Amino acid sequence: MDMANEEKQFVTEITPQSEDFSRWYIDVIKKADLMDYSPVRGCIVFKPDGYEIWEHIQEELDRRFKETGHRNAYFPLFIPESFFQKEKEHVEGFNPELPWVTEAAGEKLEERLAIRPTSETMIGHMYEKWIQSYRDLPVLINQWANVVRWEKRTLPFLRTSEFLWQEGHTAHENEQEAREETMQMLEIYRDFVENYLAIPVIVGQKTPSEKFAGAVDTYSIEAMMKDGRAVQAGTSHYLGTNFAVAFNIQYLNRDNVQEYVHTTSWGVSTRLIGSLIMVHGDDRGLALPPKVAPKQVMIIPIGPPKTRDAVVGRADELFAQLKKAGIRVGMDDRADVRPGWKFNEYEMRGVPVRLEIGPRDMENGVCVLVSRISGEKKVVQQDNLVEEVQAMLEQVHNEMYERAKSFRDEHFYSVETLDEMKASIEEKRGFTLAGWCGSEACERHVKDETGATSRNIPFEPATKKSKCLVCGEEAEHTVVFARAY
Amino acid sequence: MDMANEEKQFVTEITPQSEDFSRWYIDVIKKADLMDYSPVRGCIVFKPDGYEIWEHIQEELDRRFKETGHRNAYFPLFIPESFFQKEKEHVEGFNPELPWVTEAAGEKLEERLAIRPTSETMIGHMYEKWIQSYRDLPVLINQWANVVRWEKRTLPFLRTSEFLWQEGHTAHENEQEAREETMQMLEIYRDFVENYLAIPVIVGQKTPSEKFAGAVDTYSIEAMMKDGRAVQAGTSHYLGTNFAVAFNIQYLNRDNVQEYVHTTSWGVSTRLIGSLIMVHGDDRGLALPPKVAPKQVMIIPIGPPKTRDAVVGRADELFAQLKKAGIRVGMDDRADVRPGWKFNEYEMRGVPVRLEIGPRDMENGVCVLVSRISGEKKVVQQDNLVEEVQAMLEQVHNEMYERAKSFRDEHFYSVETLDEMKASIEEKRGFTLAGWCGSEACERHVKDETGATSRNIPFEPATKKSKCLVCGEEAEHTVVFARAY
Repeated sequence: MDMANEEKQFVTEITPQSEDFSRWYIDVIKKADLMDYSPVRGCIVFKPDGYEIWEHIQEELDRRFKETGHRNAYFPLFIPESFFQKEKEHVEGFNPELPWVTEAAGEKLEERLAIRPTSETMIGHMYEKWIQSYRDLPVLINQWANVVRWEKRTLPFLRTSEFLWQEGHTAHENEQEAREETMQMLEIYRDFVENYLAIPVIVGQKTPSEKFAGAVDTYSIEAMMKDGRAVQAGTSHYLGTNFAVAFNIQYLNRDNVQEYVHTTSWGVSTRLIGSLIMVHGDDRGLALPPKVAPKQVMIIPIGPPKTRDAVVGRADELFAQLKKAGIRVGMDDRADVRPGWKFNEYEMRGVPVRLEIGPRDMENGVCVLVSRISGEKKVVQQDNLVEEVQAMLEQVHNEMYERAKSFRDEHFYSVETLDEMKASIEEKRGFTLAGWCGSEACERHVKDETGATSRNIPFEPATKKSKCLVCGEEAEHTVVFARAY
Repeated sequence: MDMANEEKQFVTEITPQSEDFSRWYIDVIKKADLMDYSPVRGCIVFKPDGYEIWEHIQEELDRRFKETGHRNAYFPLFIPESFFQKEKEHVEGFNPELPWVTEAAGEKLEERLAIRPTSETMIGHMYEKWIQSYRDLPVLINQWANVVRWEKRTLPFLRTSEFLWQEGHTAHENEQEAREETMQMLEIYRDFVENYLAIPVIVGQKTPSEKFAGAVDTYSIEAMMKDGRAVQAGTSHYLGTNFAVAFNIQYLNRDNVQEYVHTTSWGVSTRLIGSLIMVHGDDRGLALPPKVAPKQVMIIPIGPPKTRDAVVGRADELFAQLKKAGIRVGMDDRADVRPGWKFNEYEMRGVPVRLEIGPRDMENGVCVLVSRISGEKKVVQQDNLVEEVQAMLEQVHNEMYERAKSFRDEHFYSVETLDEMKASIEEKRGFTLAGWCGSEACERHVKDETGATSRNIPFEPATKKSKCLVCGEEAEHTVVFARAY
């Protein structure tokens, strides 16, 4: 589905997921006010609630990157055309998607400048200047930035021409260290996506045809959306000496010999926003993981007009108490809107916990917490509110993770032949585990026949396959296949 | 000075400020490893120590913006050419500096896309869609982003083709509210720059010829560098209904009548990094304001080899203690580098406080704190270290502010005639207060004759002038003139 077709429609009701998942997705993100279409092809506006999810993702990842010794830096948006030519696979991979600046300040440029789709080349050029000796290593740098890939088919958050991301770029003395870094960052992504966004993922290695253009090895975490499709939620690349050779990044090693550095790169992007929506959302609307939800708790005072002022007064106190404890809390005390309407509204917006308080609750020193996921209602003491809310947020996070994991497990199939895979993909959707001989031809054949691509070679496959699903030869790898965003 | 000329030079010694201030600036930022030149004209790389200053600026400003009800959002990098045509002054102001994307993904674009120099037009277009009724107002949005202005003459941090900034964009029901917002944000900038970066500023209104292209009124804070030149450190604009009319941003007011919104915009950028370097640095190197310094304290163990292990062990404990208290602390315990060399190194890098500890200090349960600014050495009890360090950081901040303020006051002149101003600007450098009749011709004449531009019309001028310094007619305003970066 292309964004341009969606722009004009005004959302009143949310299409059920079972009826049209793509329609559901667009309905939800528009109705919940996360984004809007922009007048530039394939580019969206991140509205405050959508952007705040990204801010919470950034805060936590940034903390983890720094904890592991990385520092942030910032490199230019523009990349001279000649830089792309230096790494052959890289230029072939990215050239088809580049926008070019050809004029500036009224003059034609001598050399075209690409808008960065990723920064290996620019950073490679700089590292060549910065790195002379083993004493300069490792270089552990991350960048938060916008990047552009001129995509033909776009989808808000998941595939947009401009998107926001972080890209880590490190340089090391040898392969072992660089591979350790690659794996460390992959594990940070896995842990973050599972324990912060409540999305279970499959961790593994990309097949050669799916790896990053210019990498030796690419590793990924793959998440299953509620329509059974995959999203690559994060990647970490061991680049070997490919970019070091292309940009001549050499250093004097401990034996006084010039050597190429080994580099890595790794990134996650605003795709994560699209992923968490498609993993957790339901027919009532968004369901936001508590750790990144702009509002974690929404307070809704209830009861008849005559007790309203007293109830709202008490609700104000609860609001202040939660806010002081660092909980992101909102209150909707509008008198002219029915509580039932508000309940629906904040369910649709995905607020993890609703707090209701009425006149009788007030008298009894209690209030009611309601989970967005299970719908469970819990009467809690006001005296103990902060702890109760924190516990309920934790519970909602766990409920989301467990539901997503159950869904994924239920839609995770294991097949022996291409025919089985066709049936599985067509009828049951989801991920399919199959044996693969390692030939690009067989991999392409799967794609042509089923529309599914190899997602990765999982580190811990449920079963180990012995035969290639296409040619029947001995399987070199057990691979997860799925249709993907 | 153009950046291109500077690129190849390797800095060994820092040129004294009195000998060549521009040279000093470049020497310092390169030697202290804040930035590097990039292969793209006018674009720099923000290295980790340079970028971290920006991160601390961001954290605090972002906190203040949110505290005053603003939320972040993100708008596209690309702006269709037609958008610029909609506001006449705006297009005239920015057109000469725009880079254009003309091709993407192998095809010529139907309409050229500018790289945003600022986002009033894109945001105006979106606000038109978002604002229907007074219930939608005010809209209080900020964006952290990269922007591009293809500058002819560039200088790292102070004037680069691509730079990082924040741009606030708000829409209001009426002029009064919008003007209050404009002033509120100006005051946030003043307070931040004075109390966080230790830079005293002149607060005032820009003359019409110096205002933002498309604004009704522009207000600024102006800081004096150590060579007497001015830097516009932040601006806040009341845009009236100019952009509302251009983008047809109307709302149904409380009387059920369609009306144009009144908008504001306001921004600060990575220029602030250049400013704080030029305000506080000296012939020994950088001097970083404690609140934004990447390292606030550097611990240097001293003494003979035989006590080394014990001293380093104790220094490690002090390090842990300070770190736990949230102080950004570093330690240089290299055995093969002399303490005197380290003292110079961290003075050059502008670390606000040095902590020395030797074997005798250890026995006595003390250590020594040294201020980067006054050089004062203070022997403090280890038991009370966190409080002592915090107090010394506060003291260094105050010393920096007072020094900068004294310097500015000493280089702040008051003149009656153009001849006096010429002499003042040529011989004494600094800011000059003078009367101005309000005519653009007289203002231009000052610039042509002295190279000084009107910085702003200060809200609180030291004296009020009665005659225009050029034509001798009655002064409408008392204006601060200076040569500026």
